[in-house]
Amino acid sequence: MPKISRRAQEMPASPIRKLIPYSIEAKKRGTKVYHLNIGQPDIETPETALNALKNIDLKVLEYSLSEGNLEYRTALNNYYHSLGFNDLTTDNFIVTNGGSEALNFAISTLCDAGDEIIIPEPYYANYNGFTAAYNVKVVAIPSTIDTGFALPPIEDFEKKITDKTRAIIICNPGNPTGYLYTREELQKLAEIALKHDIVVISDEVYREYVYDGKQQVSMLEFPELAENCIIIDSESKRYSMCGVRIGFMVTRSKKIHDAAMLFAQARLSPVLIGQIIAAAAHQNDHAYIQSVREEYTKRRNLLVDLLNGIPGVICPKPKGAFYCVAELPVDDTDKFAQWLLETYSHDNETIMVAPMGGFYSNPELGKKQVRMAYVLNETDLKRSVELLHNALIQYNSVK
Amino acid sequence: MPKISRRAQEMPASPIRKLIPYSIEAKKRGTKVYHLNIGQPDIETPETALNALKNIDLKVLEYSLSEGNLEYRTALNNYYHSLGFNDLTTDNFIVTNGGSEALNFAISTLCDAGDEIIIPEPYYANYNGFTAAYNVKVVAIPSTIDTGFALPPIEDFEKKITDKTRAIIICNPGNPTGYLYTREELQKLAEIALKHDIVVISDEVYREYVYDGKQQVSMLEFPELAENCIIIDSESKRYSMCGVRIGFMVTRSKKIHDAAMLFAQARLSPVLIGQIIAAAAHQNDHAYIQSVREEYTKRRNLLVDLLNGIPGVICPKPKGAFYCVAELPVDDTDKFAQWLLETYSHDNETIMVAPMGGFYSNPELGKKQVRMAYVLNETDLKRSVELLHNALIQYNSVK
Ligand SMILES: Cc1ncc(COP(=O)(O)O)c(C=O)c1O
Ligand SMILES: Cc1ncc(COP(=O)(O)O)c(C=O)c1O
Repeated sequence: MPKISRRAQEMPASPIRKLIPYSIEAKKRGTKVYHLNIGQPDIETPETALNALKNIDLKVLEYSLSEGNLEYRTALNNYYHSLGFNDLTTDNFIVTNGGSEALNFAISTLCDAGDEIIIPEPYYANYNGFTAAYNVKVVAIPSTIDTGFALPPIEDFEKKITDKTRAIIICNPGNPTGYLYTREELQKLAEIALKHDIVVISDEVYREYVYDGKQQVSMLEFPELAENCIIIDSESKRYSMCGVRIGFMVTRSKKIHDAAMLFAQARLSPVLIGQIIAAAAHQNDHAYIQSVREEYTKRRNLLVDLLNGIPGVICPKPKGAFYCVAELPVDDTDKFAQWLLETYSHDNETIMVAPMGGFYSNPELGKKQVRMAYVLNETDLKRSVELLHNALIQYNSVK
Repeated sequence: MPKISRRAQEMPASPIRKLIPYSIEAKKRGTKVYHLNIGQPDIETPETALNALKNIDLKVLEYSLSEGNLEYRTALNNYYHSLGFNDLTTDNFIVTNGGSEALNFAISTLCDAGDEIIIPEPYYANYNGFTAAYNVKVVAIPSTIDTGFALPPIEDFEKKITDKTRAIIICNPGNPTGYLYTREELQKLAEIALKHDIVVISDEVYREYVYDGKQQVSMLEFPELAENCIIIDSESKRYSMCGVRIGFMVTRSKKIHDAAMLFAQARLSPVLIGQIIAAAAHQNDHAYIQSVREEYTKRRNLLVDLLNGIPGVICPKPKGAFYCVAELPVDDTDKFAQWLLETYSHDNETIMVAPMGGFYSNPELGKKQVRMAYVLNETDLKRSVELLHNALIQYNSVK
């Protein structure tokens, strides 16, 4: 049998990969599974977008430009101007197959095998995948649940910088922790990046979903970082159109833009239809975004309060995105999550959660934690917590 | 300014990258440009597909499974059964963002930095991009225009195999040459691959477009290669739906499939809408494919005959796909193609062609050649050749 590459062997499996067959089996047995394990919202895609889809009247579904159609990049440019970044033009955007491909382009544009990227952990698990594919090493900066995942002093990032460091990835607001960076933290990050001439890759795909009246500060607010900053953005979560596969990268650096374009041209084109739909969604989206934000706020409050009401469960309140990380009174959440699907059920229902091991560079750190996405309605969230509570009692008494 | 990765520096630009600004300028001047430079057909997407697009009635445009939805993989499985590969199941398919991503997955799954892939040249230019991104080296097997791009004896491939060789990529029928492999050639290729335990990556995205009553032989026809074969396929050209971004890889090897799935999971999901549209296109596509094949046959005959009628132009007749390679009586087709856009026009019209340098591992070999895609209707093709003829006279008299 032919060899598989080392890079494939080193690709981490998704945190829920091992669980998927058990969830399929559970459904085959007729068990209803509440999915808190992935960031797939039940929120409806905006009507403007769904109408645009209905009204597509093309005879040939052609390639678009590799950097994305001018119409859609104009919509993006308008959106970023509305955020206050008036210096941007349509040339600062490259449209990608989801934020995923933007991450892919950013990492391959900046890093060679053996290079390092600093990332505060726990972090979005697929950062491991996109780095491993290019033999790039993640250097983690730990944060812990007992401080609500507060970052260590930003200056500590500097201690991790070596001559191999090419970038720092932050996710703001953060998946999985919901952490929201302060302007002061970002300012210090900018200074450190400039001093060492490395790039800040700022993943801002949850920008709109920040709660309690707070507002996200974009890394673009630091013009001194013009040559040293890539924004990762996506329409997936903003408009609950994850399957449309439209994301993009934004950079003021012509050097980075032009290099990333080489990767964009090799794969020819982003999705034509997605660009049409997403451009439509950007029109008059204020009411939509606000109502979704309110919905997530209610869900977050409900879920976090209920979780903290279960004996032995700790769940800091996230400030943004739509995930929370909870510590459970179990030894190994990989096993517990599997047990929930394989063995447990109550009135023929169970829940699926994401064990946190895969969100750390050292999986041991996440062994007692799970990530839950509040992408279900309040009734389903209530029932999910009820199931979790009941399951924990049963699990711990069986042992 | 931060450093760009070596891999980005080594990424080849697309063969037409330098020409694009000139084509934009030409259009700004009001000049009509006939695009023979890219594989973007003017052929209409099948009505079944366009109707399916109109009838999409989803409220949430969700992620699909990372390997593609079961519905679409079932359509693909049926299609492959209709080709005679009855042993396949839906588990043999991974749906990707175009054939481009399938190539990306195949190369990253098999190759580490420094590994080698053997490819007969001239070859699809983006094979250079997908290999360079992973620091993989292309080892070319030359074919030349004077023999109509006939392959050297397949046994010659074996001479290029080293302990770094991981795969052979063939494109059948070939872009840019239209070369069609014989069963005997493929049989020998299979034997060599098995003997050295390397993988044949067979790019068959133009499978349906083969002319003169001939039929393409798929690499899947060699069951002994089960562990050593990856098929690259795409709906882009089959159904003239390039912008839909749906392709896929097919392999009988569970080992390769499972490793490729790690890359698929990291980027979450292929395009949902594209899968729905493409699944619809596969229903009753016989008449569509046949009429498009007839159309391409007419266009090929017209274009190749007219080209060979121009003094000093040589253009072998391609057997499949929708490109031809022509040698022109000029020193440097990079310069000539630029001149066509920058300086030349006739009745306010000009043509854009792809210089062949980028289709060879050594660009010098393509210096007198251009690739032309017969993706325009017969009237436009005739006018394009007229323009080329006139332009050549002018270009060579000016010098
Ligand atoms: C932090 C973060 N970045 C990027 C992505 C990529 O999403 P997509 O490729 O759908 O844009 C996700 C998806 O969950 C995410 O959570
Ligand atoms: C030989 C070959 N393979 C693969 C592709 C990739 O096309 P897509 O990504 O649109 O499927 C192309 C496109 O021109 C091609 O010519």
